[in-house]
Amino acid sequence: MKRVRDIGEFGLIRELSQNIPHAGDDCAVLPGGLLLTCDPVVEGIHFLPGTPARRVGWKAMARNLSDIAAMGGLPRWAVVSIGLRPATPVRWVRELYAGLHAAARRFDCEIVGGDTTHVKHEQFVVVTLLGQCNRPVLRTGSKIGDSVFVTGKLGGSRAGKHLTFVPRIKEARWLTAHFDIHAMIDLSDGLASDVQHLLRPGIRFDLDAAEIPFRGSLRAALTEGEDFELLFTIDPRAVTALRTKWKFPVKLTEIGHVVRGHGARLDGQPLSAKGYDHFPKRR
Amino acid sequence: MKRVRDIGEFGLIRELSQNIPHAGDDCAVLPGGLLLTCDPVVEGIHFLPGTPARRVGWKAMARNLSDIAAMGGLPRWAVVSIGLRPATPVRWVRELYAGLHAAARRFDCEIVGGDTTHVKHEQFVVVTLLGQCNRPVLRTGSKIGDSVFVTGKLGGSRAGKHLTFVPRIKEARWLTAHFDIHAMIDLSDGLASDVQHLLRPGIRFDLDAAEIPFRGSLRAALTEGEDFELLFTIDPRAVTALRTKWKFPVKLTEIGHVVRGHGARLDGQPLSAKGYDHFPKRR
Repeated sequence: MKRVRDIGEFGLIRELSQNIPHAGDDCAVLPGGLLLTCDPVVEGIHFLPGTPARRVGWKAMARNLSDIAAMGGLPRWAVVSIGLRPATPVRWVRELYAGLHAAARRFDCEIVGGDTTHVKHEQFVVVTLLGQCNRPVLRTGSKIGDSVFVTGKLGGSRAGKHLTFVPRIKEARWLTAHFDIHAMIDLSDGLASDVQHLLRPGIRFDLDAAEIPFRGSLRAALTEGEDFELLFTIDPRAVTALRTKWKFPVKLTEIGHVVRGHGARLDGQPLSAKGYDHFPKRR
Repeated sequence: MKRVRDIGEFGLIRELSQNIPHAGDDCAVLPGGLLLTCDPVVEGIHFLPGTPARRVGWKAMARNLSDIAAMGGLPRWAVVSIGLRPATPVRWVRELYAGLHAAARRFDCEIVGGDTTHVKHEQFVVVTLLGQCNRPVLRTGSKIGDSVFVTGKLGGSRAGKHLTFVPRIKEARWLTAHFDIHAMIDLSDGLASDVQHLLRPGIRFDLDAAEIPFRGSLRAALTEGEDFELLFTIDPRAVTALRTKWKFPVKLTEIGHVVRGHGARLDGQPLSAKGYDHFPKRR
């Protein structure tokens, strides 16, 4: 009998997506310029039992904001489902909501409702975000010849950044307002894994290891996940203008090119998806 | 130190709602005629470990559809977050999705995306629904003199109906298209509890025990919860037309009136909220 751990998270999502047309981007794109996304945060997986509740709330909201950023969208409204143990202090829940509200307010997003339920073991927070975007940037729009860029520095998220990161909403809005961004994704599972989502038949991503900006080790930058930086592609003729006009404190780095071929390569060697997988396969 | 169980589910929601303007209805009402709602379903709370996965999926979707029905809305798009143990059979997940899709499709609603995560203990399913409605019916619109109606028979949900119920989308759409429905809610926590949500200063709900349609006992009808029938109020002058035109197989029963006063009464006696509470207070 095949079990969830045997096919891994991406195998499972592939399987479940078969009946979901247009699945496979950071948000669902709906008529009327609407974006819809949801993302769960679970105790023991995405945060430890001792993590301050305000940070848990921030992270739960920011992960979803990052998915809206990845499409170049504006977050507008959120609903929140939380599972709580009966013995949890009310103060903890209040702090959780303070974190949720803080992250939402920073990007003019409003929490409009939600629901709570009892759990016996692991507490969880599921945020669903509704955003708006006239021309959402998909994962699959990169063209042969494109330059590949990344914001910020990768890696080091486990040292704490995964709880405090600022989603790249403003940067993504600016990018899509001033440039024709061909493809974009936020880095949640690690560069090595997430770059695979930008692939399509006939194109290859060639990345240059020496260019990848990182904290700690290159290995962590490739595989640790939860960077929540943006990875995007753009016409190489726009690169000079992009570099000149870029006005944010966060770093902007060209790390490779899109060429004819298939798969992803790092310094010419095949780069496989070894990012974080919620259901790692048995080896 | 105050804990979640000390203030109960409704106490908690009241507390959390203080920073959420317009909270407190079945769905959040957004600009552009949009309705947004989310509702978690947790193993051990909303379904037992041995419950067939297809029924779990049906219930998780139908609960949310019922919230859209309660506003007189049309469900349009859903996203689904699921927490799964690694040892769960892939077949179980496939069946879960079959149930989710079956309930959604029945009401022309489309699952457009979602996410999965690993859990160690309790599996969960959080469905978020986006619906549309030009004139949503709120909980608080009832007027003095209104007749109070309920669809279907109440109680008996624990015997299995809570896994197989059909949300009253069609009935609610018909009601709001043909009549001026003043206030409406779906019965998720039990009539005794849910009627309290329709109260506001200056009005009282007088219910007639002999009129309440039930399966099993009146007590179960009042307090068991998970009926997912509609409770609504309407101008008494429209009652004859309503009875004449009503075209659905499901029962429609007048169970009381809205009068000047405060609180809810059953046969003249104060009726307190003793519906199901996810965090029952210690006594």
